[in-house]
Amino acid sequence: MTGEAAFIHALRAIATAPAARRLADDAAVLRIGGEALVLTMDTVVEGVHYLPNDPPQDVAWKLVAVNVSDLSAKGATPAGCLYSHALGASAWDTAFLAGLDEACRRFAIPLLGGDTVRMPDGAPRSFSLTALGTGAKGCPVPSRTAARPGDRVWVSGTIGDAGLGLKAALGDLDGDASALTALLARYRRPAPEPRLGVALAPLVHAMMDVSDGLMVDASRMAEASAVGVTLDVGAVPLSAAFRAVAGEVLEVRLAAMAAGDDYELLFTAPLENTARILEAASTLNRQVTAIGTIEAGAGLSLHHEGAALPLPERLGYQH
Amino acid sequence: MTGEAAFIHALRAIATAPAARRLADDAAVLRIGGEALVLTMDTVVEGVHYLPNDPPQDVAWKLVAVNVSDLSAKGATPAGCLYSHALGASAWDTAFLAGLDEACRRFAIPLLGGDTVRMPDGAPRSFSLTALGTGAKGCPVPSRTAARPGDRVWVSGTIGDAGLGLKAALGDLDGDASALTALLARYRRPAPEPRLGVALAPLVHAMMDVSDGLMVDASRMAEASAVGVTLDVGAVPLSAAFRAVAGEVLEVRLAAMAAGDDYELLFTAPLENTARILEAASTLNRQVTAIGTIEAGAGLSLHHEGAALPLPERLGYQH
Repeated sequence: MTGEAAFIHALRAIATAPAARRLADDAAVLRIGGEALVLTMDTVVEGVHYLPNDPPQDVAWKLVAVNVSDLSAKGATPAGCLYSHALGASAWDTAFLAGLDEACRRFAIPLLGGDTVRMPDGAPRSFSLTALGTGAKGCPVPSRTAARPGDRVWVSGTIGDAGLGLKAALGDLDGDASALTALLARYRRPAPEPRLGVALAPLVHAMMDVSDGLMVDASRMAEASAVGVTLDVGAVPLSAAFRAVAGEVLEVRLAAMAAGDDYELLFTAPLENTARILEAASTLNRQVTAIGTIEAGAGLSLHHEGAALPLPERLGYQH
Repeated sequence: MTGEAAFIHALRAIATAPAARRLADDAAVLRIGGEALVLTMDTVVEGVHYLPNDPPQDVAWKLVAVNVSDLSAKGATPAGCLYSHALGASAWDTAFLAGLDEACRRFAIPLLGGDTVRMPDGAPRSFSLTALGTGAKGCPVPSRTAARPGDRVWVSGTIGDAGLGLKAALGDLDGDASALTALLARYRRPAPEPRLGVALAPLVHAMMDVSDGLMVDASRMAEASAVGVTLDVGAVPLSAAFRAVAGEVLEVRLAAMAAGDDYELLFTAPLENTARILEAASTLNRQVTAIGTIEAGAGLSLHHEGAALPLPERLGYQH
């Protein structure tokens, strides 16, 4: 066990309240006054989660967006956020606040409070944000643990764009300028849609967000649900910008499925909900694509053009 | 305006939701399903809020306790917390978790979730905790802004112990060993009592916690309420341990009133609630002491032995 894995194991021994969902879901779910309150917290560290020369507006946007993505994955409507700011250079902080404000407006998640701290001189800074939302009415808050054999596996949006966007940010990607811009935006400004999570919540069995890579996240869902998951590599949705820059041969598809930062929804649902799922997405002008199936068994399997495919060595970002 | 003051000013321009209470209270108050949800977040930074050689159990305890103190000041019962942990040496982290667990049990505030992050090598670490609680039934959540002329001013517990405890921790204080131990414990392990805040909530006009020094916090309450506050220096409650080590001459009393980290409740109430306030505290075996009055006017005034006293230069910790 790595130090981090051992630490999280020790944390789980403390976080025994049912609301903590064993620290194994995207968010905690606490019953308050007849409402399901959904709670999540993410921290970004300079030099680890973002680079000192990343645009501060985008660092702030992404901090809000990744938390909103967790709420969306639990079918929750954003209700507010608190965040902790480590003070730095005044111009950087002002730009950060502008991005924070923009994201809070975009996702309708009002800033309610937080803390402001000074760091020792020259120390890398970190920013923590806690987001809370209210669960969809009339259905349980979806978890990662409820996928069932026979379910269809779905994903929202397109996969792999942010992974290419990161390459573009690092100057490691050539191609059509407008496509590169679109991919970079997917990396820097993820745009989860909580209304889609709310609309899907009553229709799904399991739901989570894709943040560390489609394959690794799908295998986590399978493990949490004690089922097997098979993904059809050819069905994984790629954007026009992705295809323009990278094509869509098998190895490129597998790279997309291992890339992080998608912040899309991965969910499973019984076949009979197919029409309602497509309609819910269509109403919100969002794409959803069936990409696989859940079966009795364990772990992740891949299929391509009707044949089984060995798993690549790397499935995504492993903590 | 300092950089920090300017930044908080800019934050206030963003945090316009009524639930944010203009970022001027101890906590945010959000209505959820007929409940008043009280939310607060505090961050501690290595080398700023604690020292690398402070006992990790105590660092964790204090992080929980200062947030619980904010809940208590709003008359809220703890409902849960989320926290973000910056990984460091495994033994330190394990000891920190033990202190966190101990505090969560003591304050009945279950750990619900959070985040774990890696820091760049050698970087000072920081820990953020978000605490939530539910407001007392049948009365508004007390704010800092509702003190009224004619109110009596009260404080819970004793004042100045943690200030002496800090000196003891730094090796700058001599005296009776058991008194020093008691003072050090007040500094390292503050022990707010949320049940006292809950019991007082229906009886008070304004309430807040004392964290930066009794004088500076009282002057902040006066400013927020647009009233004047007069404190009777001789009435400020000092513990037996405090008096054993430092005595209680005027200058010592003023130092106690400027010292931080008390985490006691400062509140104002109409005279006719006096008996009920004393009874509420007595039921919980907690001390409350009347220390002053609210009047029309502005700012902080001090009285001692019937005469006005000029304000000392330093009223407490100024952000």
